[in-house]
Amino acid sequence: MDKALVVLSGGQDSTTCLYWAIDRFGADAVDSVTFDYGQRHRVELECAKAVAAFAGVGNTCLPIDTFAALGGDALTDSDIDVESGTDTETGLPNTFVPGRNLIFLTYAAAYAYQRKIDHLVTGVAQTDYSGYPDCREATISALQQSLRLGMESDVTIHTPLMHLSKRETVLLARDLGALPAMALTHTCYNGARPPCGNCAACELRARGFAEAGVDDPLVVAQ
Amino acid sequence: MDKALVVLSGGQDSTTCLYWAIDRFGADAVDSVTFDYGQRHRVELECAKAVAAFAGVGNTCLPIDTFAALGGDALTDSDIDVESGTDTETGLPNTFVPGRNLIFLTYAAAYAYQRKIDHLVTGVAQTDYSGYPDCREATISALQQSLRLGMESDVTIHTPLMHLSKRETVLLARDLGALPAMALTHTCYNGARPPCGNCAACELRARGFAEAGVDDPLVVAQ
Repeated sequence: MDKALVVLSGGQDSTTCLYWAIDRFGADAVDSVTFDYGQRHRVELECAKAVAAFAGVGNTCLPIDTFAALGGDALTDSDIDVESGTDTETGLPNTFVPGRNLIFLTYAAAYAYQRKIDHLVTGVAQTDYSGYPDCREATISALQQSLRLGMESDVTIHTPLMHLSKRETVLLARDLGALPAMALTHTCYNGARPPCGNCAACELRARGFAEAGVDDPLVVAQ
Repeated sequence: MDKALVVLSGGQDSTTCLYWAIDRFGADAVDSVTFDYGQRHRVELECAKAVAAFAGVGNTCLPIDTFAALGGDALTDSDIDVESGTDTETGLPNTFVPGRNLIFLTYAAAYAYQRKIDHLVTGVAQTDYSGYPDCREATISALQQSLRLGMESDVTIHTPLMHLSKRETVLLARDLGALPAMALTHTCYNGARPPCGNCAACELRARGFAEAGVDDPLVVAQ
């Protein structure tokens, strides 16, 4: 039986991916991992757990303390203002942890290897407005090759959202029956539940639902 | 100025690489990182620190607690006997942490990125008798590509020992003036100083020095 492991952050995109995996592989063949990397908003971890439980799949939380030791990014360093804009030198958002998705997916691949799971699923998207280079298709393709060689595995990294707009992601979630789980997700950069509605993440999410003509269960639920 | 970052474990091979980097880039342009991943023999971390200090380069120890959470390998799990042989299914030594070097090098690349260091140096060798797939040239080459794309960097991974036998590595260390530092290194699987002389790691090291016709300063020093 083909088995799949979903990298589940507790957000909208990874939750959509979880339902994509369940649709494709069956709930019994799907597992999920969540990374506790010192993010300021611990609510993310609770959301991931709640989403996995709601969907009826396992969820393992793996600790990553190395990001905090590397330092210097706004999502783990409370001295940096998330909203203050982009790094003037690199043009990347100051929430950028160099290679963060490479680390997440390499750990996920190690976890999967130990459990004879060949399929990884991640919600990275090239259309992501943040411009993270580790979310691009070429990066994921190169990473898959390095994981296959480095672990002598047949791992395949699936990126169902790679080329979708936020609107299309909402429509996919609807078609997969993922909308009820959306009430359990977390998106807000300010860690607010109900969402603040004003930060870039809230605005992006709201625009996607609006353009899809779908009510956001997270907002409706409040 | 080109700068280099050496992944320094405190062992013979990475110490040789440190001196290779100093020879090529100059001591002022070389930095080192060591990973505290829960290895049973904490002496490794002290050796790395001592070797770096002796060589006059910086050394940063980065914690990795994720390996212990992933579990199941003999180098971090004290319930498993390192000497009991290989995994019967994969044929890999039971000290294998899937993708360990991929993780080390990705973290090293993130650390280097933040400091505008373009050169990584690692002591992995294809001739390593352990058969780790993440030590092979093809893997390192694929990883370099994924790091370049994922971090939008010009990182180059140097592997000076890739095609050297243990004998040739000893001769290289001698030619680079690295032998005095060898007295500060650590190799023994049993964590013994003076080395036990009987484990596979001690035997491999002793054979390399014997075949090179060079006295091992670590053994002589005892």
